[in-house]
Amino acid sequence: MTISRILIANRGEIALRIHRAAHEMGIETVAVHSTADADAMHVRLADHAVCIGPPAAADSYLNIANIISAAEVSHADAIHPGYGFLSENAKFAEIVEAHDIKWIGPKPEHIRTMGDKVEAKRTAGALGLPLVPGSDGAVSEVSEARKIADEIGYPVIIKAASGGGGRGMKVCESEDQLETLMKQAGSEAKAAFGDATVYIEKYLGDPRHIEFQVFGDGNGNAIHLGERDCSLQRRHQKVLEEAPSPVLGEEDRMRMGEICAQAMRDMAYRGAGTIEFLWENGEFYFIEMNTRLQVEHPVTEAITGVDLVREQIRIAAGKPLSVAQEDIEFKGHAIECRINAEDPFTFAPSPGKITHYHPAGGMHVRVDSGLYAGYSIPPYYDSMIAKLIVYGRNREGCMMRLKRALEEMVVEGVKTSIPLHQALLEQPDVQSGDYSIKWLEEWLKTRED
Amino acid sequence: MTISRILIANRGEIALRIHRAAHEMGIETVAVHSTADADAMHVRLADHAVCIGPPAAADSYLNIANIISAAEVSHADAIHPGYGFLSENAKFAEIVEAHDIKWIGPKPEHIRTMGDKVEAKRTAGALGLPLVPGSDGAVSEVSEARKIADEIGYPVIIKAASGGGGRGMKVCESEDQLETLMKQAGSEAKAAFGDATVYIEKYLGDPRHIEFQVFGDGNGNAIHLGERDCSLQRRHQKVLEEAPSPVLGEEDRMRMGEICAQAMRDMAYRGAGTIEFLWENGEFYFIEMNTRLQVEHPVTEAITGVDLVREQIRIAAGKPLSVAQEDIEFKGHAIECRINAEDPFTFAPSPGKITHYHPAGGMHVRVDSGLYAGYSIPPYYDSMIAKLIVYGRNREGCMMRLKRALEEMVVEGVKTSIPLHQALLEQPDVQSGDYSIKWLEEWLKTRED
Repeated sequence: MTISRILIANRGEIALRIHRAAHEMGIETVAVHSTADADAMHVRLADHAVCIGPPAAADSYLNIANIISAAEVSHADAIHPGYGFLSENAKFAEIVEAHDIKWIGPKPEHIRTMGDKVEAKRTAGALGLPLVPGSDGAVSEVSEARKIADEIGYPVIIKAASGGGGRGMKVCESEDQLETLMKQAGSEAKAAFGDATVYIEKYLGDPRHIEFQVFGDGNGNAIHLGERDCSLQRRHQKVLEEAPSPVLGEEDRMRMGEICAQAMRDMAYRGAGTIEFLWENGEFYFIEMNTRLQVEHPVTEAITGVDLVREQIRIAAGKPLSVAQEDIEFKGHAIECRINAEDPFTFAPSPGKITHYHPAGGMHVRVDSGLYAGYSIPPYYDSMIAKLIVYGRNREGCMMRLKRALEEMVVEGVKTSIPLHQALLEQPDVQSGDYSIKWLEEWLKTRED
Repeated sequence: MTISRILIANRGEIALRIHRAAHEMGIETVAVHSTADADAMHVRLADHAVCIGPPAAADSYLNIANIISAAEVSHADAIHPGYGFLSENAKFAEIVEAHDIKWIGPKPEHIRTMGDKVEAKRTAGALGLPLVPGSDGAVSEVSEARKIADEIGYPVIIKAASGGGGRGMKVCESEDQLETLMKQAGSEAKAAFGDATVYIEKYLGDPRHIEFQVFGDGNGNAIHLGERDCSLQRRHQKVLEEAPSPVLGEEDRMRMGEICAQAMRDMAYRGAGTIEFLWENGEFYFIEMNTRLQVEHPVTEAITGVDLVREQIRIAAGKPLSVAQEDIEFKGHAIECRINAEDPFTFAPSPGKITHYHPAGGMHVRVDSGLYAGYSIPPYYDSMIAKLIVYGRNREGCMMRLKRALEEMVVEGVKTSIPLHQALLEQPDVQSGDYSIKWLEEWLKTRED
């Protein structure tokens, strides 16, 4: 069971990332691309390239039939989906496997389970991952709500069962507000989603986002590669990620990491996965599991030395994990800045032609990017154009190096988020690591005032 | 004793390297430059810049008076000389210190001692470093030569005491040739150098070049950071360097490293140094010591994680070594390719304007270079325009990654040695690490045939 030619069902920096890992293993690559991406770096570097459709992702990067055809005509024996697009589409994974093409990803049933919010939470609970305490499903009576809230303690949050985006969501600070807020939440939910059902959870006022990288061989062996702290977010989009988390000690890391690894052993998970938690006052609360590579995987690579994409390919080829848990050493500190083609402070997208590009260089500086001078960023896709990943022996050294690297990095022709990252590094809260998932949006508001 | 502004008395990638280390320590930089280098990257990135003269290095980068003036007008409190130029000029170091400017380098007396061939060898011997066995100085009588050759064993080499460049140099395979060859060597030496004096040494037929990185705090504490194998050379110029050496085991590394570190303790050496050896059949033979940073220092940084320039600056500021010998871990494998602006196989220089530049990126790939698109490489200086340094968990992985990185790297507008490196990586001897200092020139000859 070997792999000799991988079709990369993605674009941009992640397509390049996969190409690099493949070539370093002596494996050929097939790029697929929309008509808008004919000049893209991943197409230029791949050994073969197949156009799979027009610019709209639905017709190209999400076009299962065309991607399978591309794999067949190019004789690819494996498909790596990257992140986004079809990476968490269980049906696609099944179709790939049904065509006798190796799927470089988790078992389809695990993708499906973890892709379903309710099912994911149930599974996580059964696997021993800590959940946000709350009602076990819908709550209709105020008396029941009161009982639950008493158990888990105030504040609590009342959420619409069919909801999302903050509607039908109420934070309740004390018992005397409970009845009123439940009614309000129910009627908002009814108006917004046609369903008045609500449930109750412990309210996390100011949590951090901390996630664990896990890896399984599909046969019940699994490891964790420590955590990433991705609390600096805007509108649920991660902006800067670091590993290790500034708030986690070695003991907490190994305890929680082991819980995650054990969960993966119990489900015989295959490939790379990330278990995301909210963290507050020393406690973890499961949010979701991503059954794919994450954008921010390089910070884990930097502090562990493990090449995660290589590991994915190995596992898909039926090889065992290349490292045992006891061989994994966490050393130093790494930070990733996501560099987007957008206004650094208004966040308005800024596609266009790159007139000059000069990535940062030097010791312990890594740039993952499909940019080159003369390249035109198409307006159809994600605005992330580069990732700058910097490693240092400790967090302070890492931040100093990051500052230096940002000074050097030149992307001309479009606006980028480089100035945002530079401004962030000047903030005492960022310097000390004292930030929650709310910090960035609150800081952006103070800038506007 | 702190340093707040460093004048970098150099140009090109090493000036940039020093700038990066300084900025990562919060230290300002002053670039100096000839009129030919006004647009150079090191000038663009430095906090301050001073023009020190016309293109000819003798009038600018070697112009001590102008550099000292530049330091004074820019209020620099330290000078880093890089490599080449004034880096091993003991007088310059003394002048710098006499002006109450910190010299980021070894004590002037050590620069002087190691810069004198005879004195260096004598000192090395006294410090317990293994020398090439041979006559203790000049040999005039054939009978004496015969006695020495018998002791050290044939083949031996007869060398002109005042010589260099191969003239007055004869390899003697057996006793019956000795008299004739001594006479020939003597008369060649007389003709070439006006001095017929010759000496005798053990002849190393096919040695490797292996050097040890050392570091001292100037007070008798010193460490070694393992070795670099720089056997791939052309006309005594290193082309590709790697660490660790493919032929050295852990035990040999630690034994020889400790001998080097102890020598540095005994002389109370300060700062970075490199002790160069020839190596044949498991034995080391001292060649020389370089009392400065080496071009190939990044391979050591890659396998130890120690930032050597930061360490140099710390030591110059009177701080202790940041690591103890027992904390230094040698992990993985690193290779550096020197990329020159020259024809890859004829080696004819190729200065000119860079029309397109795209350094390699991704995991464990480091590029140290002052290149940028639109930059014109001046014809006055060294042809090295970039260093590509790649790290891997083992030698094979490192070479695969290097191959991938070379594929990606784009330098257009001039010829470069990238194709040479690509061809080298295809050679079984290079792949297996089976090469001596003669290998590259011999291989180049077979290509010509």
